[in-house]
Amino acid sequence: MYSIGIDIGGTNTDMGLVSEDGTIVGRSSIPTSAYTELTPYVRDIMACIDKLMKDKGMAEIDGIGIGAPNGNYYTGCVDNAPNLTIKGVLNFEEEMHKYMNVPVVLSNDANAAAYGEMVYGGAKGLDNFIMFTLGTGVGSGIVLDGKLVHGSTGGAGELGHNILVPNGRPCSCGRRGCLETYTSARGIVRTYCELKGIPYSADIKSKMVGDLANQGDPIALKTWETVADQLGLAMANSVTFSAPQAIFLMGGPTKVGEPLLKPLQKAFEKYLLNIYAGSCQIRMSELKANEVAILGAAALIKMKK
Amino acid sequence: MYSIGIDIGGTNTDMGLVSEDGTIVGRSSIPTSAYTELTPYVRDIMACIDKLMKDKGMAEIDGIGIGAPNGNYYTGCVDNAPNLTIKGVLNFEEEMHKYMNVPVVLSNDANAAAYGEMVYGGAKGLDNFIMFTLGTGVGSGIVLDGKLVHGSTGGAGELGHNILVPNGRPCSCGRRGCLETYTSARGIVRTYCELKGIPYSADIKSKMVGDLANQGDPIALKTWETVADQLGLAMANSVTFSAPQAIFLMGGPTKVGEPLLKPLQKAFEKYLLNIYAGSCQIRMSELKANEVAILGAAALIKMKK
Repeated sequence: MYSIGIDIGGTNTDMGLVSEDGTIVGRSSIPTSAYTELTPYVRDIMACIDKLMKDKGMAEIDGIGIGAPNGNYYTGCVDNAPNLTIKGVLNFEEEMHKYMNVPVVLSNDANAAAYGEMVYGGAKGLDNFIMFTLGTGVGSGIVLDGKLVHGSTGGAGELGHNILVPNGRPCSCGRRGCLETYTSARGIVRTYCELKGIPYSADIKSKMVGDLANQGDPIALKTWETVADQLGLAMANSVTFSAPQAIFLMGGPTKVGEPLLKPLQKAFEKYLLNIYAGSCQIRMSELKANEVAILGAAALIKMKK
Repeated sequence: MYSIGIDIGGTNTDMGLVSEDGTIVGRSSIPTSAYTELTPYVRDIMACIDKLMKDKGMAEIDGIGIGAPNGNYYTGCVDNAPNLTIKGVLNFEEEMHKYMNVPVVLSNDANAAAYGEMVYGGAKGLDNFIMFTLGTGVGSGIVLDGKLVHGSTGGAGELGHNILVPNGRPCSCGRRGCLETYTSARGIVRTYCELKGIPYSADIKSKMVGDLANQGDPIALKTWETVADQLGLAMANSVTFSAPQAIFLMGGPTKVGEPLLKPLQKAFEKYLLNIYAGSCQIRMSELKANEVAILGAAALIKMKK
């Protein structure tokens, strides 16, 4: 049976029809930012889904999974997401059931990415792992006994907002020193600028710092070593919580490769409590960057209750 | 039906016969450090259990729960506990089944304390919470969806070894800056000595620092504020993992009361990510200090699979 995966971003909403083995057999997209009300937004999403299904001659699907900022697994709602033009508490489940009576499962995007890795990617067969996603922010998804950890509120798994450095860099969350301020794309550029002794500039991208490192630039290399040390510490600390079999990494900045991954492995081992030695691997996501959001959303349908 | 709770410490092994409602109706004890082999040790434990049951005219029990350092839930073994005179991997489950065919469940002492709080104490009705135990060390037990978090190895929930201060105080685990080095009884005394400008002395006890604080001594008060800030940060960070409904505290140092608890509440709120505001309470354990270890062990029998 096929499922629908929907990735709700601030700019675009991407949809895909996904087969049992994780192949996206059809895709569609609408501009999220063109909507200010839930009803027409869901109407247009459902029209896209209807067309995706008809194009493949399909009468039924397993369900609809949605990865969204502030997506709440328990309520089936998106709760006041700051980067969406549609405001308030948005009940996708209720709205979608007006069109189609299938399970609708929501979670935030990093949780969905973790679950997608388990159902379709490199975490197949694992039931205890953590996913860190590096990008504009730093997200995480935690899988324990084969289930996503949602906690009492639905908002568990925000390791990007673990405070790594008390009174450290200011974070968009209003506090200081969150992991995200050091290991997001912007945090990496900031470290590079600090080490280089130049003011921070939004024109410098983490990809440039990655290219410089791969060309042997010593300041860029030092930047990735610093980021690796911070991320390795955060990862080792996360192991004291759930003793995972693996920690997965994904996102733009991880594409730099060796300049990050080599010192990361070293830092992780240095900071890991001895009782966990050898029990937890660092691995890269095996899903394609342009597929992970849709596959992760579609995978939510497969979640054990 | 009654269960047996066994608390294995380096010096003594305490046993109790526990009723359904958490009353300890009989107790017994043997000196752990008098044994170097598992077989005679378990033989003598089972003789005590037999006597406890006979004294109450009982023919059957629910099971035997054991809280032990390095107690592994998955294997039913104690794995190379450094502070026990009986060395190696100790298979309690197998050894006990030679005497009595009842479920034998093991976990470490902090996990047992957390579970005991849920079954018999202040966490009744909660299914998402974290317990921090302050004492010689700092332990933790994490309950998620009504189950103890054991992770892939059985060794999850070691938040006392979360690195709070990179390159901070040396820890008994061989690393530096673990939470335990700041908020254990010894860590608290160490902070007091540092603030007072005197060398660390094992003659100063955390209880003395507590008494001084309650008499208004400014350096002692400052000590507890510092400890509260560090513990509050660690607690707030733990919320980003599992979004618990409550964080429980127990152990000798917590008995100081206000000098710790007032600044702790403040620090926790200061460091808590905004999406969790108001969703997680700090609470004190409601079990008696001299009962918690036995009740916690007995509670393990009630665990959902």
